[in-house]
Amino acid sequence: MAEKDLQALFLHQLKDIYFAETTIVKALPKLAQAAQSEELRGAFAVHLKETEGQVRRLEQVFKLLGEKPQGVECKAIQGIIAEGDELAEEFKGGEALDAGLIAAAQAVEHYEITRYGTLLAWAKQLGMDDAAQLLEETLVEEENTDEILSELAEEAINPAAAA
Amino acid sequence: MAEKDLQALFLHQLKDIYFAETTIVKALPKLAQAAQSEELRGAFAVHLKETEGQVRRLEQVFKLLGEKPQGVECKAIQGIIAEGDELAEEFKGGEALDAGLIAAAQAVEHYEITRYGTLLAWAKQLGMDDAAQLLEETLVEEENTDEILSELAEEAINPAAAA
Repeated sequence: MAEKDLQALFLHQLKDIYFAETTIVKALPKLAQAAQSEELRGAFAVHLKETEGQVRRLEQVFKLLGEKPQGVECKAIQGIIAEGDELAEEFKGGEALDAGLIAAAQAVEHYEITRYGTLLAWAKQLGMDDAAQLLEETLVEEENTDEILSELAEEAINPAAAA
Repeated sequence: MAEKDLQALFLHQLKDIYFAETTIVKALPKLAQAAQSEELRGAFAVHLKETEGQVRRLEQVFKLLGEKPQGVECKAIQGIIAEGDELAEEFKGGEALDAGLIAAAQAVEHYEITRYGTLLAWAKQLGMDDAAQLLEETLVEEENTDEILSELAEEAINPAAAA
């Protein structure tokens, strides 16, 4: 019988977010390509670089656990990204497209924020200080990205969409 | 051709979160039933009542727009809930089950937080003050619920899971 303790749960959730991050690395260039505003394209490009670094951090956490980096299908991120793709298709060529793309990207960010928040709490509980530090670095980046996207939406993208 | 402006995007996203909220109303009793800790069962029961109120607030927003309340399939919430169900099945009977259930519930909360945050920003941009107020009330509730679940996890559920 498989282990069902917090350590096992931590590893399961780590595989889930690893799958999610590698999926996001593939999705971000498509979001950037769809964006109409140069500023938003730039923000997505910056976040792609950051996401690549977050994948490497997760690989370090696997290493700390003595495990090989491995993903497990994450239906949540698949659903979030599928919904973003549909919205991008539906609002293509319209003045609100970029506002919809930001909303889609923020849904992705919030999924990551909740998962890293949980993993960080579990790592602390398990006394895994090095893993906790890596997870916290990424959590802070995700929260910053969400904040940057909110500002971009409120200051430039939403007013343009409503003009 | 369908409208593609911010007002149309707002209505689309409103239907998405309406579908999500009504799905969550059905999912919460299952989460409560699966929970081992009485405290966690209680937290889920409280949040069910709150969610029912949030559905009614959304219906008021539809009314303010002169629209009939209507959902549109939300693949994101379906994926998030499916993932929670799988995890509940996998960790059933194990000491980390409740920690996994809280993580699943917080993933749901963060989906709602991002969607209400976006809808609130769009309502303000569109000058829909009454809708904005209703959306903000729900957003505050969702953020509080997320906070309550974090505290419950850190103070009781995670230590018990690691014991």
